[in-house]
Amino acid sequence: MEPVMSKSEAAGLIIAARTRRGLTWAGIAEELGTPLVWTTAALLGQHPLTREQADRVCALLGLDEPVAESLTLQPSRGTDPAVMADPTIYRFTEALSVYGPALKELIHEEFGDGIMSAINFRVDIARRPSPDGDRVVVTFDGKFLDYKW
Amino acid sequence: MEPVMSKSEAAGLIIAARTRRGLTWAGIAEELGTPLVWTTAALLGQHPLTREQADRVCALLGLDEPVAESLTLQPSRGTDPAVMADPTIYRFTEALSVYGPALKELIHEEFGDGIMSAINFRVDIARRPSPDGDRVVVTFDGKFLDYKW
Amino acid sequence: MEPVMSKSEAAGLIIAARTRRGLTWAGIAEELGTPLVWTTAALLGQHPLTREQADRVCALLGLDEPVAESLTLQPSRGTDPAVMADPTIYRFTEALSVYGPALKELIHEEFGDGIMSAINFRVDIARRPSPDGDRVVVTFDGKFLDYKW
Amino acid sequence: MEPVMSKSEAAGLIIAARTRRGLTWAGIAEELGTPLVWTTAALLGQHPLTREQADRVCALLGLDEPVAESLTLQPSRGTDPAVMADPTIYRFTEALSVYGPALKELIHEEFGDGIMSAINFRVDIARRPSPDGDRVVVTFDGKFLDYKW
Amino acid sequence: MEPVMSKSEAAGLIIAARTRRGLTWAGIAEELGTPLVWTTAALLGQHPLTREQADRVCALLGLDEPVAESLTLQPSRGTDPAVMADPTIYRFTEALSVYGPALKELIHEEFGDGIMSAINFRVDIARRPSPDGDRVVVTFDGKFLDYKW
Amino acid sequence: MEPVMSKSEAAGLIIAARTRRGLTWAGIAEELGTPLVWTTAALLGQHPLTREQADRVCALLGLDEPVAESLTLQPSRGTDPAVMADPTIYRFTEALSVYGPALKELIHEEFGDGIMSAINFRVDIARRPSPDGDRVVVTFDGKFLDYKW
Amino acid sequence: MEPVMSKSEAAGLIIAARTRRGLTWAGIAEELGTPLVWTTAALLGQHPLTREQADRVCALLGLDEPVAESLTLQPSRGTDPAVMADPTIYRFTEALSVYGPALKELIHEEFGDGIMSAINFRVDIARRPSPDGDRVVVTFDGKFLDYKW
Amino acid sequence: MEPVMSKSEAAGLIIAARTRRGLTWAGIAEELGTPLVWTTAALLGQHPLTREQADRVCALLGLDEPVAESLTLQPSRGTDPAVMADPTIYRFTEALSVYGPALKELIHEEFGDGIMSAINFRVDIARRPSPDGDRVVVTFDGKFLDYKW
Amino acid sequence: MEPVMSKSEAAGLIIAARTRRGLTWAGIAEELGTPLVWTTAALLGQHPLTREQADRVCALLGLDEPVAESLTLQPSRGTDPAVMADPTIYRFTEALSVYGPALKELIHEEFGDGIMSAINFRVDIARRPSPDGDRVVVTFDGKFLDYKW
Amino acid sequence: MEPVMSKSEAAGLIIAARTRRGLTWAGIAEELGTPLVWTTAALLGQHPLTREQADRVCALLGLDEPVAESLTLQPSRGTDPAVMADPTIYRFTEALSVYGPALKELIHEEFGDGIMSAINFRVDIARRPSPDGDRVVVTFDGKFLDYKW
Repeated sequence: MEPVMSKSEAAGLIIAARTRRGLTWAGIAEELGTPLVWTTAALLGQHPLTREQADRVCALLGLDEPVAESLTLQPSRGTDPAVMADPTIYRFTEALSVYGPALKELIHEEFGDGIMSAINFRVDIARRPSPDGDRVVVTFDGKFLDYKW
Repeated sequence: MEPVMSKSEAAGLIIAARTRRGLTWAGIAEELGTPLVWTTAALLGQHPLTREQADRVCALLGLDEPVAESLTLQPSRGTDPAVMADPTIYRFTEALSVYGPALKELIHEEFGDGIMSAINFRVDIARRPSPDGDRVVVTFDGKFLDYKW
Repeated sequence: MEPVMSKSEAAGLIIAARTRRGLTWAGIAEELGTPLVWTTAALLGQHPLTREQADRVCALLGLDEPVAESLTLQPSRGTDPAVMADPTIYRFTEALSVYGPALKELIHEEFGDGIMSAINFRVDIARRPSPDGDRVVVTFDGKFLDYKW
Repeated sequence: MEPVMSKSEAAGLIIAARTRRGLTWAGIAEELGTPLVWTTAALLGQHPLTREQADRVCALLGLDEPVAESLTLQPSRGTDPAVMADPTIYRFTEALSVYGPALKELIHEEFGDGIMSAINFRVDIARRPSPDGDRVVVTFDGKFLDYKW
Repeated sequence: MEPVMSKSEAAGLIIAARTRRGLTWAGIAEELGTPLVWTTAALLGQHPLTREQADRVCALLGLDEPVAESLTLQPSRGTDPAVMADPTIYRFTEALSVYGPALKELIHEEFGDGIMSAINFRVDIARRPSPDGDRVVVTFDGKFLDYKW
Repeated sequence: MEPVMSKSEAAGLIIAARTRRGLTWAGIAEELGTPLVWTTAALLGQHPLTREQADRVCALLGLDEPVAESLTLQPSRGTDPAVMADPTIYRFTEALSVYGPALKELIHEEFGDGIMSAINFRVDIARRPSPDGDRVVVTFDGKFLDYKW
Repeated sequence: MEPVMSKSEAAGLIIAARTRRGLTWAGIAEELGTPLVWTTAALLGQHPLTREQADRVCALLGLDEPVAESLTLQPSRGTDPAVMADPTIYRFTEALSVYGPALKELIHEEFGDGIMSAINFRVDIARRPSPDGDRVVVTFDGKFLDYKW
Repeated sequence: MEPVMSKSEAAGLIIAARTRRGLTWAGIAEELGTPLVWTTAALLGQHPLTREQADRVCALLGLDEPVAESLTLQPSRGTDPAVMADPTIYRFTEALSVYGPALKELIHEEFGDGIMSAINFRVDIARRPSPDGDRVVVTFDGKFLDYKW
Repeated sequence: MEPVMSKSEAAGLIIAARTRRGLTWAGIAEELGTPLVWTTAALLGQHPLTREQADRVCALLGLDEPVAESLTLQPSRGTDPAVMADPTIYRFTEALSVYGPALKELIHEEFGDGIMSAINFRVDIARRPSPDGDRVVVTFDGKFLDYKW
Repeated sequence: MEPVMSKSEAAGLIIAARTRRGLTWAGIAEELGTPLVWTTAALLGQHPLTREQADRVCALLGLDEPVAESLTLQPSRGTDPAVMADPTIYRFTEALSVYGPALKELIHEEFGDGIMSAINFRVDIARRPSPDGDRVVVTFDGKFLDYKW
């Protein structure tokens, strides 16, 4: 019995194939008909794909069955702290350390006692042109869940 | 010479006054004419206010000069890790641990090598009605900065 | 303007009053008409009380207005790691370190990809007599939330 | 002399075989006649199996002797902190950080000074249908042990 | 309502009184009729005393009611990591880091899968004369608990 | 030149051989004529063996020269924190966090300012039958060393 | 005997006085005739001042003898990790995490095996106008010390 | 599909080739026509190279296509904490822990509320002869970014 | 009953008195007739003084009975990690991180399996004139203790 | 292109060869004509050797060119925290945690504000016979560097 290929090994092969074939994450997402950030996160190992999605990705990228099988498996989610320190990712963490308590206050003011779900949740990213330099616009959109006993 | 009141002590008095006077963060922001998340973060100690803004806040909340002086000072920014573990704040951290590497990939794909600024940056929060339950929508909007030697 | 009494200071006074008046958590919960674990957690500072609940608790325990005000405030939730190492609490943590991955597998097997909510959630505790020694029975009961984009 | 296969390598092969053969944890537990959570935890490496149990599991899953041998060995128990941060597992940890001190108070109120055993202990998981969405119900059931010199 | 005196404040007063009155822990334990290590640990804040024991200790040491009340309360157990690094305490920790895995092997060999209870448990300390220099002999004596579902 | 086999690899082979040959730690210790806990710790990599002891162990277990060579080498002592969290080992750590400061007080009361040596030191383990369930009895026995300039 | 005022308390009073009197760090440094970064660091508690320097600073800022005494004392140097996470300071840390290994390679290439001293060392800061936005220029200038046995 | 060579593996081969061919970082930078610190950091894995730059480096050092491909990829930036503790690198960290808060004060005094960019940023290193021993001069030069909502 | 003055509070008063009276550690040690490093460490709180030593120190420095009492008490030894990062102290830690494993090898080569005692131990410090700049010479001198079961 | 052998792999082969050939560190140092602690540290990977030194060591120990090449490379210095916890090394760390602040006071008293260099520095180790048991004497000898702007 062969062990299953790990999600990080599968992600490494997907990144290699994507680069060598000159594909974009946006192109792959369009091909699959799935949202852009979800697709990228899933191929990096954070969401399971359906069998059909996994087969289509592997066909598109020229990857084998072990990659497809790995993509369909349930992930253990999260990211290594060393990777979270990369400057491009760290700016989001820093923004939370500055604005997190304010967001908490405003969620409670507007919705009452509860949270924004990170499960019934989506993230979008867009480029917004601006005369002072284009802007990265990232939207977190989650269902409000109130503390409910 | 009296030492300056700390920003956290000032924030504690602002929270007490806001509760006792029945004011909202939205109402205070409107009064000041400043953005909602910025205002809340500033009053919690993450941004300096101008002298005039500080005086107006203190007048509105019935607070004294030492609070106003504290609000005008340059902050040391950031939030205690214990507070970051509060569930309402933690959901944002969790979302970054799941989607951070995907956002990095997509920023690089769309903009090239660089980051979303967390300084030339704004955050908005909105309530979006939805038949399945209203949603919290938080937007991070920062200027793209490319690695530039 | 007086600062608000902290939730931990309020909890300290509640514990002192409860001991000196010979009351039980169960008795206080019954008096308030609220669930037992919820009530205990709320009085220890983890949930806000309504104004009416706070007044009834303070009347019952002989505590003043600042305690009542503190109880009605929105908490920053969580527990100091030093307290989590107390043996009575640590056994729960140990059980999770042994059974956590199994619970994850079984949640996914039964419900698909998602989580047990810790917000739309309740905990109960009961004593179950047993000839080998009575047992502590703790039930975690949370709504299933599926990853839903 | 061949070294023994590690429990995590054995678990990886069991997960691979289970997926490829379309078996469920519930089905395996039923086949073995052992409790569901115990069985899942044991196959993930947290409890030793008897020789007979190990042989039956390996026959069912088409795995070899080295896996069976590994399953019978005494484990070193516990879970990597990175895995404990997976959202499905983290919700249990978060619940403990909110309700842990309350459970401690209530155990002492009902039983006196002592702990719920995590050794003479069982965990069950069930699905409880609910009009608002089905619920995950997890029960911790451990013998009370009093501090006894 | 006065808050309860903390166990560490009570311990500080007990240490001061014991030194100034020239008493020993052994003498206090004898006076109370309780085991030596238990008594010392309890007065340092790790075990609750009965009301009668607390009163006798306070009478013996010339301490007031708030100390007695504090001693009867349920403790949150454990020791600050900075104190655990004191050389006299650290040697025990070092011995565990050298012999811990061997003790685990031997407990399993002799008793099967389970643990030595740290709750149904006692510790003794003795001085053993030896020509090469007297020896500290510390005995951990806990009931074996087998993993039992 | 072949690198030396690591102590942890040697320990892995010893555990495999011991299991497959049905030997016990007690039997191996008796064969070597060395104390039980010392022998187990040494074979797990915490003490060096003499050449003769290493040869006898390898003959008994059917292991090769590289294992014997590894056993004779000077170890770097200590145990991985992940292993120290195993419940069977953790109970000792917990006992120290509860009783460590009391043991320190009593060592100073009886012996003066100093420590129990963890080097001129032995550990024994025994099973003590008891009507309430047999007990694990572990004895730490170390020479007292006084702070001596 | 009064205890000495801590360096952080002295720094707090200096910051308050400097703000209230409308002085700048540059102005204070000029008044003292000492380098700008050195002066600022010293008044924040990282270097001792001579008695004469301390007296002149206190005269300039209207502060009392206890502040002057505190400024002359030998400091325990370093900064709290929470303060190091402030974005303005963190950017320097991030730059080191990106360029630190390259600086090490280049120091060794140019100077051989050794270090840049952080003791025989100075730091300067300047504003450099630039059409794309002014620049912060910080220079670290330390004596090379070669590993020399 | 072959996985991509990691940046750290590529850096290892570049260091080996550079040593064996007797090249310097300065020589490689001159050959590429790129700044010295940037080039060194990029070859150690902190910046992506263009395809043409990567090909020229590999030709110069006698390295193969997989190294060139690796050099062109987008990095995850940052350095392992163990490497940051190397004395040559640590001196920079120590200097920041002593002068970081002073630099923050002076940036705010000169520029207002904001940061030195670590992205629109360059680092230079030079040797400055001095009669007391030559000096390492490292310049951080980053665009000022003001907090701008 | 007054609590005992903490050793760190006593050390603060000793440092203040020593500075104000213009005394040196060497002078105090000579006055007491005790070794220099031992005396300094003891007055900073790391060793207990005899009653007579404490009285002489307090007479010399003009300090009161509570300081003397504090000095005679048994300390909990060790230093806060923040203080260990001070550059003057850190250089010793760095030297150990570079030479620690070499010292271990050489102790084992010369003495066999064991340690240098840190209890039966003394430290001396001296100034050694040298044409290249005077040198700090610190000697650690501890009894060898062999692992002895 | 072959990657360079890591310093830790080279150290592993040196330890193996030294044991098998029955050589001592002292003998190797004498053969090389280099100081004892320096030589041991260098062969364990903490200092670079000259080409000639590396060749002589490899000839003496029967090791190949890749080991010699590795020994000549510039190291990244420091030791894994797990190794620093070995009892033989830990005693030095413990001594610093007890005497570090005293050494700092005495360096400042004798030399003024500055440090003992850990770069212009040597360590010696000696055995000093003593009737009470021989002693390990370790001398740290570093140039004093004063804070000098």
